[in-house]
Amino acid sequence: MSKSSKYVPQIVVRRLPRYYRHISELRDMGVERISSKELAEKMGLTASQIRQDFNCFGGFGQQGYGYNIEQLHKTIHSILGLDRGYKTVIIGAGNLGHAIANYPGFQRRGFNLVGIFDNSADVCGTVINGLTVKHIDTIEEEFEALKPDIVILTVKKQSAHDIVERICPLGIKGIWNFSHMELKVPDGIKIENVHLSESLMTLSHAISEIE
Amino acid sequence: MSKSSKYVPQIVVRRLPRYYRHISELRDMGVERISSKELAEKMGLTASQIRQDFNCFGGFGQQGYGYNIEQLHKTIHSILGLDRGYKTVIIGAGNLGHAIANYPGFQRRGFNLVGIFDNSADVCGTVINGLTVKHIDTIEEEFEALKPDIVILTVKKQSAHDIVERICPLGIKGIWNFSHMELKVPDGIKIENVHLSESLMTLSHAISEIE
Repeated sequence: MSKSSKYVPQIVVRRLPRYYRHISELRDMGVERISSKELAEKMGLTASQIRQDFNCFGGFGQQGYGYNIEQLHKTIHSILGLDRGYKTVIIGAGNLGHAIANYPGFQRRGFNLVGIFDNSADVCGTVINGLTVKHIDTIEEEFEALKPDIVILTVKKQSAHDIVERICPLGIKGIWNFSHMELKVPDGIKIENVHLSESLMTLSHAISEIE
Repeated sequence: MSKSSKYVPQIVVRRLPRYYRHISELRDMGVERISSKELAEKMGLTASQIRQDFNCFGGFGQQGYGYNIEQLHKTIHSILGLDRGYKTVIIGAGNLGHAIANYPGFQRRGFNLVGIFDNSADVCGTVINGLTVKHIDTIEEEFEALKPDIVILTVKKQSAHDIVERICPLGIKGIWNFSHMELKVPDGIKIENVHLSESLMTLSHAISEIE
Protein backbone atom coordinates (compact mmCIF):
# COMPACT_ATOMS: atom_id res chain seq x y z
CA MET A 1 0.00 0.00 0.00
CA SER A 2 1.78 3.11 -1.20
CA LYS A 3 0.61 6.24 0.48
CA SER A 4 1.20 8.36 -2.59
CA SER A 5 -0.73 5.99 -4.83
CA LYS A 6 -4.01 7.85 -4.40
CA TYR A 7 -5.25 11.25 -3.41
CA VAL A 8 -6.28 11.49 0.22
CA PRO A 9 -8.53 14.44 1.11
CA GLN A 10 -6.98 16.92 3.54
CA ILE A 11 -9.87 16.48 5.94
CA VAL A 12 -9.07 12.77 6.27
CA VAL A 13 -5.37 13.53 6.76
CA ARG A 14 -6.38 15.93 9.56
CA ARG A 15 -8.19 13.09 11.32
CA LEU A 16 -5.25 10.67 11.13
CA PRO A 17 -3.38 11.93 14.22
CA ARG A 18 -6.55 11.42 16.23
CA TYR A 19 -6.95 7.90 14.91
CA TYR A 20 -3.31 7.32 15.74
CA ARG A 21 -3.76 8.50 19.31
CA HIS A 22 -6.75 6.23 19.93
CA ILE A 23 -5.13 3.24 18.20
CA SER A 24 -1.97 3.79 20.27
CA GLU A 25 -4.02 3.75 23.46
CA LEU A 26 -5.74 0.51 22.47
CA ARG A 27 -2.37 -1.01 21.57
CA ASP A 28 -0.90 0.05 24.95
CA MET A 29 -3.85 -1.67 26.62
CA GLY A 30 -3.06 -4.89 24.77
CA VAL A 31 -6.13 -4.83 22.52
CA GLU A 32 -5.50 -6.87 19.37
CA ARG A 33 -8.43 -5.99 17.18
CA ILE A 34 -11.43 -3.71 17.06
CA SER A 35 -14.51 -3.37 14.87
CA SER A 36 -15.27 -0.11 13.12
CA LYS A 37 -18.37 0.10 15.35
CA GLU A 38 -16.36 -0.15 18.59
CA LEU A 39 -13.73 2.29 17.37
CA ALA A 40 -16.51 4.67 16.29
CA GLU A 41 -18.04 4.60 19.78
CA LYS A 42 -14.69 5.26 21.42
CA MET A 43 -13.97 8.19 19.13
CA GLY A 44 -17.43 9.70 18.81
CA LEU A 45 -17.57 9.06 15.06
CA THR A 46 -19.76 6.80 12.95
CA ALA A 47 -18.61 3.36 11.81
CA SER A 48 -19.21 4.25 8.17
CA GLN A 49 -17.08 7.38 8.54
CA ILE A 50 -14.20 5.29 9.83
CA ARG A 51 -14.52 2.69 7.08
CA GLN A 52 -14.64 5.47 4.50
CA ASP A 53 -11.57 7.19 5.95
CA PHE A 54 -9.53 4.00 6.12
CA ASN A 55 -10.55 3.13 2.57
CA CYS A 56 -8.61 6.20 1.43
CA PHE A 57 -5.50 4.26 2.38
CA GLY A 58 -6.61 1.03 0.81
CA GLY A 59 -8.57 -0.17 3.86
CA PHE A 60 -7.15 -1.96 6.87
CA GLY A 61 -9.95 -4.30 7.82
CA GLN A 62 -11.41 -7.67 7.04
CA GLN A 63 -15.18 -8.12 6.83
CA GLY A 64 -16.44 -9.61 10.09
CA TYR A 65 -13.04 -9.52 11.75
CA GLY A 66 -12.44 -5.84 12.32
CA TYR A 67 -9.15 -4.02 12.31
CA ASN A 68 -5.88 -5.49 13.47
CA ILE A 69 -4.59 -2.90 15.95
CA GLU A 70 -0.91 -3.67 15.46
CA GLN A 71 -1.14 -3.40 11.69
CA LEU A 72 -3.30 -0.29 11.87
CA HIS A 73 -0.86 1.34 14.27
CA LYS A 74 2.12 0.51 12.09
CA THR A 75 0.50 1.78 8.91
CA ILE A 76 -0.76 5.08 10.34
CA HIS A 77 2.60 5.55 12.08
CA SER A 78 4.25 5.31 8.70
CA ILE A 79 1.71 7.44 6.83
CA LEU A 80 2.23 10.20 9.40
CA GLY A 81 5.97 10.03 8.81
CA LEU A 82 6.61 9.07 12.43
CA ASP A 83 9.08 6.41 11.30
CA ARG A 84 11.37 9.02 9.75
CA GLY A 85 12.95 10.02 13.07
CA TYR A 86 12.53 13.72 12.35
CA LYS A 87 14.92 15.93 14.27
CA THR A 88 13.43 18.96 16.00
CA VAL A 89 14.85 22.07 17.62
CA ILE A 90 13.04 24.52 19.85
CA ILE A 91 13.60 28.23 19.34
CA GLY A 92 12.38 30.15 22.37
CA ALA A 93 13.20 28.64 25.76
CA GLY A 94 10.48 30.42 27.71
CA ASN A 95 7.74 28.65 29.63
CA LEU A 96 6.17 27.12 26.55
CA GLY A 97 9.54 26.03 25.14
CA HIS A 98 10.32 24.39 28.48
CA ALA A 99 6.94 22.66 28.59
CA ILE A 100 7.41 21.22 25.11
CA ALA A 101 11.02 20.19 25.74
CA ASN A 102 9.91 18.26 28.81
CA TYR A 103 6.89 16.58 27.26
CA PRO A 104 7.74 12.87 26.88
CA GLY A 105 4.99 12.35 24.31
CA PHE A 106 6.96 13.90 21.46
CA GLN A 107 9.90 11.58 21.92
CA ARG A 108 7.49 8.66 22.12
CA ARG A 109 5.91 9.74 18.84
CA GLY A 110 9.30 9.42 17.16
CA PHE A 111 10.41 13.05 17.25
CA ASN A 112 13.96 13.66 18.31
CA LEU A 113 14.72 16.94 20.10
CA VAL A 114 18.32 17.87 19.24
CA GLY A 115 18.66 21.54 20.18
CA ILE A 116 17.16 24.49 22.07
CA PHE A 117 17.88 28.15 21.30
CA ASP A 118 17.11 31.45 22.96
CA ASN A 119 18.36 35.03 22.83
CA SER A 120 18.35 35.74 26.57
CA ALA A 121 21.62 35.59 28.48
CA ASP A 122 19.69 34.31 31.52
CA VAL A 123 18.61 31.17 29.73
CA CYS A 124 21.55 30.42 27.43
CA GLY A 125 23.85 27.87 29.00
CA THR A 126 21.11 26.34 31.17
CA VAL A 127 20.21 22.71 30.59
CA ILE A 128 16.68 21.61 29.66
CA ASN A 129 15.97 17.92 29.37
CA GLY A 130 19.65 17.17 28.82
CA LEU A 131 20.21 19.89 26.20
CA THR A 132 22.21 23.06 26.79
CA VAL A 133 20.35 26.12 25.53
CA LYS A 134 22.41 27.83 22.80
CA HIS A 135 22.31 31.47 21.79
CA ILE A 136 20.28 32.25 18.73
CA ASP A 137 23.29 33.98 17.17
CA THR A 138 24.93 30.58 16.71
CA ILE A 139 21.97 29.19 14.84
CA GLU A 140 23.59 29.04 11.39
CA GLU A 141 26.59 26.97 12.50
CA GLU A 142 24.57 24.86 14.93
CA PHE A 143 21.97 24.00 12.29
CA GLU A 144 24.74 22.90 9.94
CA ALA A 145 25.83 20.34 12.52
CA LEU A 146 22.40 19.37 13.89
CA LYS A 147 20.53 19.27 10.57
CA PRO A 148 17.09 19.67 12.14
CA ASP A 149 14.00 18.84 10.09
CA ILE A 150 11.45 20.73 12.19
CA VAL A 151 11.72 23.99 14.08
CA ILE A 152 9.37 24.43 17.03
CA LEU A 153 8.89 28.17 17.23
CA THR A 154 7.94 29.34 20.72
CA VAL A 155 9.19 32.93 20.54
CA LYS A 156 7.18 36.11 20.96
CA LYS A 157 5.18 37.41 18.02
CA GLN A 158 7.59 40.31 17.48
CA SER A 159 10.68 38.13 16.91
CA ALA A 160 8.99 35.44 14.82
CA HIS A 161 9.34 37.08 11.42
CA ASP A 162 13.10 37.75 11.70
CA ILE A 163 13.85 34.28 12.98
CA VAL A 164 11.87 32.64 10.20
CA GLU A 165 13.84 34.65 7.62
CA ARG A 166 17.06 33.33 9.14
CA ILE A 167 16.12 29.68 9.47
CA CYS A 168 14.31 29.08 6.19
CA PRO A 169 17.52 28.97 4.10
CA LEU A 170 19.12 26.49 6.52
CA GLY A 171 17.56 23.34 5.09
CA ILE A 172 14.62 22.86 7.45
CA LYS A 173 11.47 21.10 6.26
CA GLY A 174 8.81 22.41 8.58
CA ILE A 175 7.89 24.90 11.29
CA TRP A 176 5.57 24.17 14.19
CA ASN A 177 4.50 27.71 14.93
CA PHE A 178 3.32 28.82 18.39
CA SER A 179 4.22 32.48 17.84
CA HIS A 180 0.66 33.72 17.13
CA MET A 181 2.04 35.22 13.93
CA GLU A 182 1.00 34.21 10.43
CA LEU A 183 4.32 33.42 8.76
CA LYS A 184 5.23 33.36 5.11
CA VAL A 185 7.67 30.60 4.22
CA PRO A 186 9.18 29.55 0.88
CA ASP A 187 7.63 26.71 -1.12
CA GLY A 188 8.92 23.42 0.13
CA ILE A 189 8.73 24.36 3.81
CA LYS A 190 5.58 23.29 5.59
CA ILE A 191 4.08 25.22 8.44
CA GLU A 192 1.61 24.21 11.11
CA ASN A 193 0.18 27.04 13.17
CA VAL A 194 -1.03 26.38 16.68
CA HIS A 195 -3.81 28.65 17.88
CA LEU A 196 -4.55 27.51 21.41
CA SER A 197 -7.19 30.12 22.02
CA GLU A 198 -9.38 28.57 19.31
CA SER A 199 -9.83 25.52 21.46
CA LEU A 200 -10.73 27.67 24.49
CA MET A 201 -13.29 29.51 22.36
CA THR A 202 -14.84 26.20 21.34
CA LEU A 203 -15.23 25.39 25.03
CA SER A 204 -16.68 28.83 25.71
CA HIS A 205 -19.27 28.27 22.98
CA ALA A 206 -20.23 24.88 24.40
CA ILE A 207 -20.70 26.35 27.87
CA SER A 208 -22.72 29.31 26.64
CA GLU A 209 -25.06 26.90 24.86
CA ILE A 210 -26.04 25.12 28.08
CA GLU A 211 -26.51 28.21 30.20
CA MET B 1 -30.76 36.56 15.39
CA SER B 2 -31.03 34.07 18.21
CA LYS B 3 -28.21 31.59 18.24
CA SER B 4 -30.39 28.86 19.66
CA SER B 5 -33.07 29.40 17.00
CA LYS B 6 -31.65 26.78 14.67
CA TYR B 7 -29.40 23.77 14.77
CA VAL B 8 -25.81 24.53 13.82
CA PRO B 9 -23.69 21.52 12.81
CA GLN B 10 -20.76 20.84 15.12
CA ILE B 11 -18.31 21.10 12.22
CA VAL B 12 -19.42 24.69 11.59
CA VAL B 13 -19.15 25.52 15.29
CA ARG B 14 -15.59 24.13 15.19
CA ARG B 15 -14.71 26.59 12.43
CA LEU B 16 -16.11 29.64 14.25
CA PRO B 17 -13.02 30.35 16.40
CA ARG B 18 -10.93 30.40 13.23
CA TYR B 19 -13.34 32.81 11.58
CA TYR B 20 -13.23 34.89 14.72
CA ARG B 21 -9.43 35.05 14.67
CA HIS B 22 -9.29 36.18 11.05
CA ILE B 23 -12.14 38.68 11.47
CA SER B 24 -10.41 40.08 14.57
CA GLU B 25 -7.19 40.57 12.60
CA LEU B 26 -9.04 42.39 9.82
CA ARG B 27 -10.81 44.55 12.40
CA ASP B 28 -7.49 45.41 14.09
CA MET B 29 -6.18 46.45 10.68
CA GLY B 30 -9.11 48.82 10.26
CA VAL B 31 -10.81 46.86 7.47
CA GLU B 32 -14.54 47.66 7.37
CA ARG B 33 -15.92 45.06 5.01
CA ILE B 34 -14.86 42.01 3.07
CA SER B 35 -16.40 39.83 0.38
CA SER B 36 -16.79 36.11 0.92
CA LYS B 37 -14.28 35.66 -1.93
CA GLU B 38 -11.60 37.77 -0.22
CA LEU B 39 -12.20 36.16 3.15
CA ALA B 40 -12.04 32.74 1.49
CA GLU B 41 -8.64 33.54 -0.03
CA LYS B 42 -7.29 34.75 3.29
CA MET B 43 -8.49 31.64 5.09
CA GLY B 44 -7.83 29.00 2.44
CA LEU B 45 -11.52 28.12 2.16
CA THR B 46 -14.01 28.54 -0.68
CA ALA B 47 -16.40 31.47 -0.86
CA SER B 48 -19.40 29.15 -1.02
CA GLN B 49 -18.22 27.34 2.11
CA ILE B 50 -18.10 30.63 3.97
CA ARG B 51 -21.53 31.74 2.76
CA GLN B 52 -22.94 28.35 3.73
CA ASP B 53 -21.34 28.48 7.20
CA PHE B 54 -22.56 32.01 7.90
CA ASN B 55 -26.03 31.10 6.70
CA CYS B 56 -26.27 28.71 9.65
CA PHE B 57 -26.43 31.83 11.82
CA GLY B 58 -28.88 33.66 9.61
CA GLY B 59 -26.24 35.11 7.28
CA PHE B 60 -24.21 38.24 7.90
CA GLY B 61 -23.83 39.65 4.39
CA GLN B 62 -25.57 41.72 1.80
CA GLN B 63 -25.45 40.70 -1.85
CA GLY B 64 -22.78 42.75 -3.65
CA TYR B 65 -21.62 44.47 -0.49
CA GLY B 66 -19.89 41.74 1.43
CA TYR B 67 -19.67 41.34 5.16
CA ASN B 68 -19.47 44.19 7.62
CA ILE B 69 -16.43 43.33 9.74
CA GLU B 70 -17.59 45.10 12.88
CA GLN B 71 -20.97 43.39 12.83
CA LEU B 72 -19.47 40.02 11.97
CA HIS B 73 -16.97 40.36 14.81
CA LYS B 74 -19.64 41.32 17.31
CA THR B 75 -21.95 38.50 16.33
CA ILE B 76 -19.34 35.73 16.36
CA HIS B 77 -17.96 37.14 19.62
CA SER B 78 -21.39 36.70 21.13
CA ILE B 79 -22.06 33.26 19.59
CA LEU B 80 -18.77 32.04 21.05
CA GLY B 81 -19.84 33.28 24.47
CA LEU B 82 -16.89 35.67 24.65
CA ASP B 83 -19.16 38.42 25.97
CA ARG B 84 -19.97 36.40 29.08
CA GLY B 85 -16.72 37.32 30.86
CA TYR B 86 -16.05 33.72 31.87
CA LYS B 87 -13.78 33.38 34.88
CA THR B 88 -10.94 30.89 34.59
CA VAL B 89 -8.52 29.32 37.01
CA ILE B 90 -5.36 27.39 36.19
CA ILE B 91 -4.61 24.21 38.13
CA GLY B 92 -0.97 23.26 37.63
CA ALA B 93 1.55 26.11 37.76
CA GLY B 94 4.31 24.34 35.87
CA ASN B 95 5.81 25.61 32.64
CA LEU B 96 2.60 25.22 30.67
CA GLY B 97 0.50 26.82 33.42
CA HIS B 98 2.94 29.75 33.47
CA ALA B 99 2.84 30.08 29.69
CA ILE B 100 -0.96 30.19 29.65
CA ALA B 101 -1.17 32.59 32.61
CA ASN B 102 1.14 34.99 30.81
CA TYR B 103 -0.53 34.82 27.41
CA PRO B 104 -2.28 38.16 26.84
CA GLY B 105 -4.52 36.69 24.14
CA PHE B 106 -6.86 35.00 26.61
CA GLN B 107 -7.61 38.20 28.45
CA ARG B 108 -8.15 39.92 25.12
CA ARG B 109 -10.62 37.22 24.13
CA GLY B 110 -12.69 38.06 27.18
CA PHE B 111 -11.47 35.37 29.56
CA ASN B 112 -10.71 36.50 33.05
CA LEU B 113 -8.00 34.59 34.94
CA VAL B 114 -8.90 34.75 38.64
CA GLY B 115 -6.78 32.07 40.30
CA ILE B 116 -3.82 29.71 39.98
CA PHE B 117 -3.32 26.53 42.03
CA ASP B 118 -0.53 24.04 42.48
CA ASN B 119 0.46 21.36 44.99
CA SER B 120 4.16 22.14 45.18
CA ALA B 121 5.50 24.14 48.12
CA ASP B 122 8.11 25.66 45.78
CA VAL B 123 5.47 27.31 43.64
CA CYS B 124 2.71 28.14 46.16
CA GLY B 125 3.01 31.74 47.29
CA THR B 126 4.82 32.89 44.15
CA VAL B 127 3.11 35.46 41.96
CA ILE B 128 2.28 34.84 38.32
CA ASN B 129 0.79 37.65 36.29
CA GLY B 130 -0.41 39.38 39.46
CA LEU B 131 -1.97 36.27 41.02
CA THR B 132 -0.54 34.47 44.04
CA VAL B 133 -0.41 30.71 43.48
CA LYS B 134 -2.59 28.95 46.07
CA HIS B 135 -2.24 25.42 47.36
CA ILE B 136 -4.56 22.89 45.84
CA ASP B 137 -5.76 21.89 49.31
CA THR B 138 -7.59 25.22 49.57
CA ILE B 139 -9.45 24.68 46.34
CA GLU B 140 -12.90 24.11 47.85
CA GLU B 141 -12.97 27.35 49.84
CA GLU B 142 -11.21 29.36 47.13
CA PHE B 143 -13.65 28.21 44.45
CA GLU B 144 -16.53 29.26 46.65
CA ALA B 145 -15.17 32.81 46.65
CA LEU B 146 -13.83 32.92 43.09
CA LYS B 147 -16.74 31.12 41.38
CA PRO B 148 -14.71 30.15 38.32
CA ASP B 149 -16.53 29.00 35.17
CA ILE B 150 -13.62 27.26 33.48
CA VAL B 151 -10.73 25.23 34.91
CA ILE B 152 -7.57 25.13 32.82
CA LEU B 153 -6.01 21.82 33.78
CA THR B 154 -2.25 21.76 33.26
CA VAL B 155 -1.32 19.07 35.76
CA LYS B 156 0.43 15.79 35.07
CA LYS B 157 -1.59 12.87 33.76
CA GLN B 158 -1.35 11.04 37.10
CA SER B 159 -3.04 13.79 39.14
CA ALA B 160 -5.72 14.72 36.62
CA HIS B 161 -8.34 12.18 37.62
CA ASP B 162 -8.29 13.04 41.36
CA ILE B 163 -8.41 16.75 40.73
CA VAL B 164 -11.34 16.43 38.36
CA GLU B 165 -13.27 14.45 40.99
CA ARG B 166 -12.69 17.28 43.44
CA ILE B 167 -13.55 20.21 41.21
CA CYS B 168 -16.60 18.87 39.38
CA PRO B 169 -18.98 19.33 42.36
CA LEU B 170 -17.79 22.93 42.87
CA GLY B 171 -20.02 24.56 40.26
CA ILE B 172 -17.65 24.80 37.31
CA LYS B 173 -19.00 24.74 33.75
CA GLY B 174 -16.06 23.55 31.73
CA ILE B 175 -12.56 22.08 31.75
CA TRP B 176 -9.85 22.96 29.26
CA ASN B 177 -7.78 19.83 29.58
CA PHE B 178 -4.04 19.72 28.82
CA SER B 179 -3.38 16.70 31.02
CA HIS B 180 -3.17 14.09 28.19
CA MET B 181 -5.77 12.13 30.10
CA GLU B 182 -9.25 11.32 28.84
CA LEU B 183 -11.49 12.54 31.65
CA LYS B 184 -15.02 11.58 32.57
CA VAL B 185 -17.10 14.48 33.80
CA PRO B 186 -20.75 14.68 34.88
CA ASP B 187 -23.41 15.84 32.42
CA GLY B 188 -23.57 19.59 32.36
CA ILE B 189 -19.80 20.07 32.48
CA LYS B 190 -18.14 20.55 29.11
CA ILE B 191 -14.64 19.41 28.39
CA GLU B 192 -12.22 20.39 25.66
CA ASN B 193 -9.14 18.22 25.36
CA VAL B 194 -5.96 19.65 23.90
CA HIS B 195 -3.72 17.17 22.14
CA LEU B 196 -0.76 19.19 20.95
CA SER B 197 1.05 16.24 19.46
CA GLU B 198 -1.75 15.81 16.91
CA SER B 199 -0.79 19.07 15.31
CA LEU B 200 2.89 18.03 15.21
CA MET B 201 1.89 14.76 13.56
CA THR B 202 -0.04 16.68 10.89
CA LEU B 203 3.13 18.62 10.18
CA SER B 204 5.16 15.41 10.09
CA HIS B 205 2.76 13.97 7.52
CA ALA B 206 2.97 17.08 5.35
CA ILE B 207 6.78 16.93 5.39
CA SER B 208 6.94 13.24 4.62
CA GLU B 209 4.70 13.82 1.60
CA ILE B 210 7.18 16.20 -0.06
CA GLU B 211 10.30 14.20 0.62
